[in-house]
Amino acid sequence: MNQFISVKDVSNIDSLVQKALDYKANPFKDKTLGTNKRIGCLFLNPSMRTRLSTQIAAQNLGMEAIVFNVGQEGWALEFGEDAIMNGNTVEHVKEAAPIMGKYFDILAIRTFPSLKSREEDYSELYINQFIKYAGIPVVSMESATLHPLQSFADLITIKEVFKEARKPKVVLTWAPHVKPLPQCVANSFAQWMNAWGGADFVVTHPEGYELDGQFTKGATITHNQDEALKDADFIYVKNWSSYQDYGKILSNDQSWMLTNEKLKQTNNAKVMHCLPVRRNLELGGDVLDSANSIVTHEAGNRVWAAQAVLSEILSKM
Amino acid sequence: MNQFISVKDVSNIDSLVQKALDYKANPFKDKTLGTNKRIGCLFLNPSMRTRLSTQIAAQNLGMEAIVFNVGQEGWALEFGEDAIMNGNTVEHVKEAAPIMGKYFDILAIRTFPSLKSREEDYSELYINQFIKYAGIPVVSMESATLHPLQSFADLITIKEVFKEARKPKVVLTWAPHVKPLPQCVANSFAQWMNAWGGADFVVTHPEGYELDGQFTKGATITHNQDEALKDADFIYVKNWSSYQDYGKILSNDQSWMLTNEKLKQTNNAKVMHCLPVRRNLELGGDVLDSANSIVTHEAGNRVWAAQAVLSEILSKM
Amino acid sequence: MNQFISVKDVSNIDSLVQKALDYKANPFKDKTLGTNKRIGCLFLNPSMRTRLSTQIAAQNLGMEAIVFNVGQEGWALEFGEDAIMNGNTVEHVKEAAPIMGKYFDILAIRTFPSLKSREEDYSELYINQFIKYAGIPVVSMESATLHPLQSFADLITIKEVFKEARKPKVVLTWAPHVKPLPQCVANSFAQWMNAWGGADFVVTHPEGYELDGQFTKGATITHNQDEALKDADFIYVKNWSSYQDYGKILSNDQSWMLTNEKLKQTNNAKVMHCLPVRRNLELGGDVLDSANSIVTHEAGNRVWAAQAVLSEILSKM
Repeated sequence: MNQFISVKDVSNIDSLVQKALDYKANPFKDKTLGTNKRIGCLFLNPSMRTRLSTQIAAQNLGMEAIVFNVGQEGWALEFGEDAIMNGNTVEHVKEAAPIMGKYFDILAIRTFPSLKSREEDYSELYINQFIKYAGIPVVSMESATLHPLQSFADLITIKEVFKEARKPKVVLTWAPHVKPLPQCVANSFAQWMNAWGGADFVVTHPEGYELDGQFTKGATITHNQDEALKDADFIYVKNWSSYQDYGKILSNDQSWMLTNEKLKQTNNAKVMHCLPVRRNLELGGDVLDSANSIVTHEAGNRVWAAQAVLSEILSKM
Repeated sequence: MNQFISVKDVSNIDSLVQKALDYKANPFKDKTLGTNKRIGCLFLNPSMRTRLSTQIAAQNLGMEAIVFNVGQEGWALEFGEDAIMNGNTVEHVKEAAPIMGKYFDILAIRTFPSLKSREEDYSELYINQFIKYAGIPVVSMESATLHPLQSFADLITIKEVFKEARKPKVVLTWAPHVKPLPQCVANSFAQWMNAWGGADFVVTHPEGYELDGQFTKGATITHNQDEALKDADFIYVKNWSSYQDYGKILSNDQSWMLTNEKLKQTNNAKVMHCLPVRRNLELGGDVLDSANSIVTHEAGNRVWAAQAVLSEILSKM
Repeated sequence: MNQFISVKDVSNIDSLVQKALDYKANPFKDKTLGTNKRIGCLFLNPSMRTRLSTQIAAQNLGMEAIVFNVGQEGWALEFGEDAIMNGNTVEHVKEAAPIMGKYFDILAIRTFPSLKSREEDYSELYINQFIKYAGIPVVSMESATLHPLQSFADLITIKEVFKEARKPKVVLTWAPHVKPLPQCVANSFAQWMNAWGGADFVVTHPEGYELDGQFTKGATITHNQDEALKDADFIYVKNWSSYQDYGKILSNDQSWMLTNEKLKQTNNAKVMHCLPVRRNLELGGDVLDSANSIVTHEAGNRVWAAQAVLSEILSKM
């Protein structure tokens, strides 16, 4: 593996999951793999779990991790090819990225979408420019359209929790929110579920919240949440703004919020969420406080997902 | 020791002081005690000494320290039990704390009081919620009502500096300030002095600045600063806002500012302050520039206080 | 070396350059030199390259590096000798600096000029107060008037790239910008070029942009950019605000922007800049995208410059 931008960078999903679980059992077994290697973690946007789990994963492998909050601690970056930089941006990615490439052995980046231009966001301009100019392996800590470290941790969690021989029914359900959020987590979860193929995968959301077909293709899609939830083994709860009417909130229908009452329709489903989650808005506090919630377990697995990915990249150096 | 929230978590104060002084003499003597252990330092509020000394203490013990500025680098936290999170808070402590518990071996937290509701601040809701949900040892880097790492460093300093056989006279004096400050440092210093019992301890402040009796009980309390200062061996200078008329500034009487002139009444007293100190407002520049001031010596001892505490917690793991 | 504030702290420039190039060839050869030593990196202003390269250099030498963003993570500092601190500043350098001296073995500081008072900026009050009160070696990560780690990296780059026996012609040219910038980089580059003496050194700028003679003395100075560029081997591009009419932008003449067209007059000159650079304002994108640009190569050398300096300081401890 020489980058980690989406599930397409993974040659064998099942063996990568196993690698992560091996690290969970024995976090320090490769403590010297990263000796004298350095990862730069660039945050163009805020982060908690991703920030901490990536640092921890690197440390577990004996790497030095350096965190840099672009904009807050440094300069606003420019991505426009021929920009005349007489405005607010101070440094062009064409300079910033190759320097990161000289300073670090691996570059991890978080960069959110603007939610203003679908075309621009879905071109993944920012992370692609870093890949183009950095000259070292790039790891996405969430980009404009995808969040692969999250989805990988999600899959680890499902495989770890589900012990039956049959395929689990996994449902991704839209949830209400007060702010327009990216489609990243939903896109990425759908992409991983489909690439893995080990689940009966269903996506449910109100009309108008259809995700980009390139990610959901292969899934069953329905606007009927009750139908989707029926006999589910896992429910992945997540809000996203509209992909069609790009970046807009079309509905805030509170009847879509998952509650213990709704859970009764399921096969005693485990409930997942990438976090942070707004209690009693996206997801009922009753569900989060119940034994069905595995959201913090899932967040814990972020460390092992990141560690497996960094280990794969390091071992190819 | 499996947490460090107040002096009540210390079984033997004198031996903990000795442990700190041993580290001061030999900072790296337990360099492998923290191997493969990790401390998360969460700042809900700004910090300089506490931030740096805790990181240094952890490093001296061979631990990895990860600093996270909640709110600034991540999300605003919610603490209300049944909050409907449709406002500014993005993540509930019920999710955040257990995740910290999965990522770290020890969790250190700084969280200031609001100074709006005495009842809420004195319930220590924030740090107690972290203790309840994190599932790992929690260390206070200053909470709503106490600052035990500071007070421990203060006691180390007094014991280190005072070489006579008799009990020293230690005076905590209120000082003027332009902003309403928490009672934490004063509460905590009083609590430690009383728990230690090795000093003749006097608290002095203008009327209306009485501290919570649970912390000052056992001390001599007077509104007459001159009387208090008489023959003092140590003067601890600190502003705090009113506990009675909660969070208010009742007086800004500059005559309470300690000066070299006032020091003449004392037994050539050493002058202490937790820092940061506003010169010529809280404390005269003449005093700070004199040989009587031990404020930076005291700040230096923050490292050894933190190191002794982390060492105690690590040795119980 | 017991501090690094300007080229005057360097006893042998050529051997320090060689030391840096040795580290470039073998970054980890002194991995234990900094064992149990700690550097504090204090940022009163934003930074990317300096921040990252200093951290990396310290790590390469086995030192612990702790970064602290003063003001953002902590408190606003006061530098006025007799200030009555009833305003926005919270802590005096007289307290802050000695504490840093207790916490760290080396203190690195970044502090920009105000560009309001030339007298104050050129007195280098801030960094001098830190030197006066910290009691440990201080390294400038850019001060009010100089940026020695940058200039040292610049010289490393020139010596590394230029292989001929003759002296290279090195030109420092002013460039347009929309904001008033410090003179630091230009002052410092001139000071290093003159102290080194290995180049035919020319400074060119519009009238009114004369730099302080203490730094440029010995250089050829001209207002005719074309004349300056003729047969140049290296062109160092940089904007600065006026030293005469202090801190002002006198001209924004775009004809001063270096382009590939202008480069034709040179001896196929290599183009340098300290970065960040505003493309198509300070420096043409055509130049930056050409093989003549060595700006990212130069930025990469920041690591080895910092490593050589820290190594010199450590070896004197």
